[in-house]
Amino acid sequence: MRALISVSDKSGVENFAKELVALGYEIISTGGTYKKLQDAGIAVIEANEVTKFPECFEGRVKTLNPYIHGGILHRRDKQSHLDQAKELGVEGIDLVCVNLYPFKATIEKTDDFEEIIENIDIGGPAMVRSAAKNFDSVIIVTDVADYDTVLDNLKNNTNTVEFRRDMMIKAFEHTAAYDSMIANYMNGRFNDGFGEYQFITGKKSFQTRYGENPHQKGALYEFDNHFTKNFKQIKGEASFNNINDVNGALKIASSFGDENAVCIVKHGNPCGFAIKGTLLESYTEALKCDPVSAFGGVVAVNGVVTKELAEKMNEIFLEVVMAADFDAEALEVFEKKKRLKLFAQGGTKLVMSNDSHDFKHVDGGFVYQNADCICDGEVHNAEQKSELTATAQEMKDLEIAWKVAGLTKSNCVVYVKDSAMVAVGMGMTSRVDAAQCALKKAKEMDLDVSGAAMASEAFFPFRDSIDAAAAAGVKAIIEPGGSIRDDEVIEAANEHGISLYFTTVRHFLH
Amino acid sequence: MRALISVSDKSGVENFAKELVALGYEIISTGGTYKKLQDAGIAVIEANEVTKFPECFEGRVKTLNPYIHGGILHRRDKQSHLDQAKELGVEGIDLVCVNLYPFKATIEKTDDFEEIIENIDIGGPAMVRSAAKNFDSVIIVTDVADYDTVLDNLKNNTNTVEFRRDMMIKAFEHTAAYDSMIANYMNGRFNDGFGEYQFITGKKSFQTRYGENPHQKGALYEFDNHFTKNFKQIKGEASFNNINDVNGALKIASSFGDENAVCIVKHGNPCGFAIKGTLLESYTEALKCDPVSAFGGVVAVNGVVTKELAEKMNEIFLEVVMAADFDAEALEVFEKKKRLKLFAQGGTKLVMSNDSHDFKHVDGGFVYQNADCICDGEVHNAEQKSELTATAQEMKDLEIAWKVAGLTKSNCVVYVKDSAMVAVGMGMTSRVDAAQCALKKAKEMDLDVSGAAMASEAFFPFRDSIDAAAAAGVKAIIEPGGSIRDDEVIEAANEHGISLYFTTVRHFLH
Repeated sequence: MRALISVSDKSGVENFAKELVALGYEIISTGGTYKKLQDAGIAVIEANEVTKFPECFEGRVKTLNPYIHGGILHRRDKQSHLDQAKELGVEGIDLVCVNLYPFKATIEKTDDFEEIIENIDIGGPAMVRSAAKNFDSVIIVTDVADYDTVLDNLKNNTNTVEFRRDMMIKAFEHTAAYDSMIANYMNGRFNDGFGEYQFITGKKSFQTRYGENPHQKGALYEFDNHFTKNFKQIKGEASFNNINDVNGALKIASSFGDENAVCIVKHGNPCGFAIKGTLLESYTEALKCDPVSAFGGVVAVNGVVTKELAEKMNEIFLEVVMAADFDAEALEVFEKKKRLKLFAQGGTKLVMSNDSHDFKHVDGGFVYQNADCICDGEVHNAEQKSELTATAQEMKDLEIAWKVAGLTKSNCVVYVKDSAMVAVGMGMTSRVDAAQCALKKAKEMDLDVSGAAMASEAFFPFRDSIDAAAAAGVKAIIEPGGSIRDDEVIEAANEHGISLYFTTVRHFLH
Repeated sequence: MRALISVSDKSGVENFAKELVALGYEIISTGGTYKKLQDAGIAVIEANEVTKFPECFEGRVKTLNPYIHGGILHRRDKQSHLDQAKELGVEGIDLVCVNLYPFKATIEKTDDFEEIIENIDIGGPAMVRSAAKNFDSVIIVTDVADYDTVLDNLKNNTNTVEFRRDMMIKAFEHTAAYDSMIANYMNGRFNDGFGEYQFITGKKSFQTRYGENPHQKGALYEFDNHFTKNFKQIKGEASFNNINDVNGALKIASSFGDENAVCIVKHGNPCGFAIKGTLLESYTEALKCDPVSAFGGVVAVNGVVTKELAEKMNEIFLEVVMAADFDAEALEVFEKKKRLKLFAQGGTKLVMSNDSHDFKHVDGGFVYQNADCICDGEVHNAEQKSELTATAQEMKDLEIAWKVAGLTKSNCVVYVKDSAMVAVGMGMTSRVDAAQCALKKAKEMDLDVSGAAMASEAFFPFRDSIDAAAAAGVKAIIEPGGSIRDDEVIEAANEHGISLYFTTVRHFLH
């Protein structure tokens, strides 16, 4: 039996090779791997002894050779193949252990195109694919983490076709992910990220109990451990819808730097938000906006949850609390709540991966775009359109309302007072309806909107929403501007003594 | 100069080879391509003359050879490489024309695993990747559609490095898409579609003017021409948001077989829907639900738009009309509307690709799930929970309300009367609010909800929504059921003389 080992990531390779030798394998190897194994005192055949051809062109051609690929690819279940192998002097290779040149590490550390091109592995993927194709007879190992499993299976006579098939699938995942990364990199570098093909590659973090609904299967796939890096399941398992809600809540709660932001989300949209002196106060105020919707909701806390906050949260049924972290006492308080799920990031404040792009499935394909980003400058540099200038607290409220509105489903109108959301209308086909439903709800909840700031993520086409806002006591408004009736809107603001700011940037979110 | 040609799709290859010969290229070829070119009277060198090794193992090993890969991969800008090539007898290969074994066609026509495995190309991708890596000196051609461009560039001395770089990117897209397809196929076959990696591959249909907002770049990517197959731009260009809205409108309008369904969508959600005797009547009724939101809306018409319908549509500003088709007179009517966009499918009724899976971006990754599907049986086999039985028209209204509710953003409540939607609440954090806002809006619009059927895509947790529905005159209700207070809900229905049906299936959509 022969095993070919040629790895870029050399961790654990000596022991793996040693064990294979003990199991009766002859080891074939190339370049750096060959040297490492030889130095470790392992009997190893250099590839060019097999290929009868020198390694050439500074290593560009080493294993692209019929003695290697014939050795991997010939079918052991066909006598004609076995006869031909014998006749040609091709010896079988029964295990191929290859991982690829570090293209990813290279593009992360340099822009030098020659170096990047040199780190596109050619021989490696060819061997991986050959061995995967012939998984019926050959074990293909592409992951250092699989060394022990492979050895166990060889030792225990459990080197089954099902095992080799799993390794085959892993091998094609490895080459698919590698070339997808190369294609995306090239399109990023030369085609502004919008090449002829777009490859979205995800590694499974975990399977959810079901999808958006119980009759759908679902899973979370992540980019290079980006999601789980910032997401630890402390208590309970995240459902498909939890992940979606957490995503919405996190985006909003982490949008205000180090401030004590707390956001409550239901069905992907916020039903509570506040930034107060303490996280406890923030949560308390956030809850007031819509305690009915908050029932069964998902809360994101931009900080560490303490005992006091945990006790306050325990007063109602929440489904998820996501926080930078929980202190030991808080965890104790939550212990009793059987259905409550706790997820943490492990730091002191919430962080995001901030993916550069965003996409959405549509029947037959997907739309793909640069990620939206709500910059602080949009509020600080907003154009004052009214005669009246907002007070410092109103400016703060405008900032909060603007950011929350940009991260809530369109059409959306957000009302904020004293750094707490007091009303929100979202996801509706009409902006006026969203504005009015929010006010109606605030009234039912006995929330006083007078003195509040209001934001709309897209322009108000008419003055009607301004008039309605004024009637409710709104004192400051922020919106992108850009309607052909902006003049009427400005006039309305001045008539009602409302300060009005235009950001010139729109934030539709669907 | 030498060109290596080895293609699975042989269309146009004789002419391409002939032209290359005329340009001074020697042609190297293998197997079927070799035979085809020779039959066409083209001077061609068989690969094994170059490799000094026979094609073996029934074609599994043909070009995996240092004379081929060295010929492709050695750097022409390095004297040491040129010297070594000379010394080893490796002659340069300057153009590689390869397309791959038809893995896709194979999995579409057979389940035979041996045949499928045999159609995984090994030698092809290796040559494609070698040539792409050395694009500095080598032209890699992977697409029949590029033959003319390649010849033009060779003839006109415009074989620039930028051109070869574009071909390199295309080559890596080709191999990335190929291995992604193999990995997805294997995971579909052996891991129920939820393997360790998920590859979402899209081919660009077109770039949109911008993304969801003007500061974002955007594009539509499709699966194997699935989107554009059912989408022709007749007038105007689809924006990013148009595609999203069209997707929503199409799903709803195509959910009722051959019936005359018309759906009006704004911000991804329906603001009008009806099925009447004619498409004109359907549109007229659909518009009544919320003519304010319909302004600037996207309409999907399950049929061919005629002159009469076009004239009716022209009465207000619509942004998009999507239909199975438009007749010539209708197109003439629309001619005058400068800002109106028309998209068609080219058939007699709307169709969908019906993707098997669905996905959604979350920061750091994506959630992936089986596509949701609202089956006719859900309504026809719904359990009657009330004493009262719905009339035939009420059953029809329940069916419409149920399907529209399942395709509208949660939380959502839909009211339908005489096969036309009369009220809808959607996208809100509270189901009660959605139900009430819809009724309030209907009242403002002077729409009579009495006698309507109502659907909720998820269960009503309390009887309050039933009581409110009864007060508005609702006569029939459909919902999944499953609340711990279902008994109270049933009791309320019986008290109010409402027929109540449970589908047992939920359709959250976020």
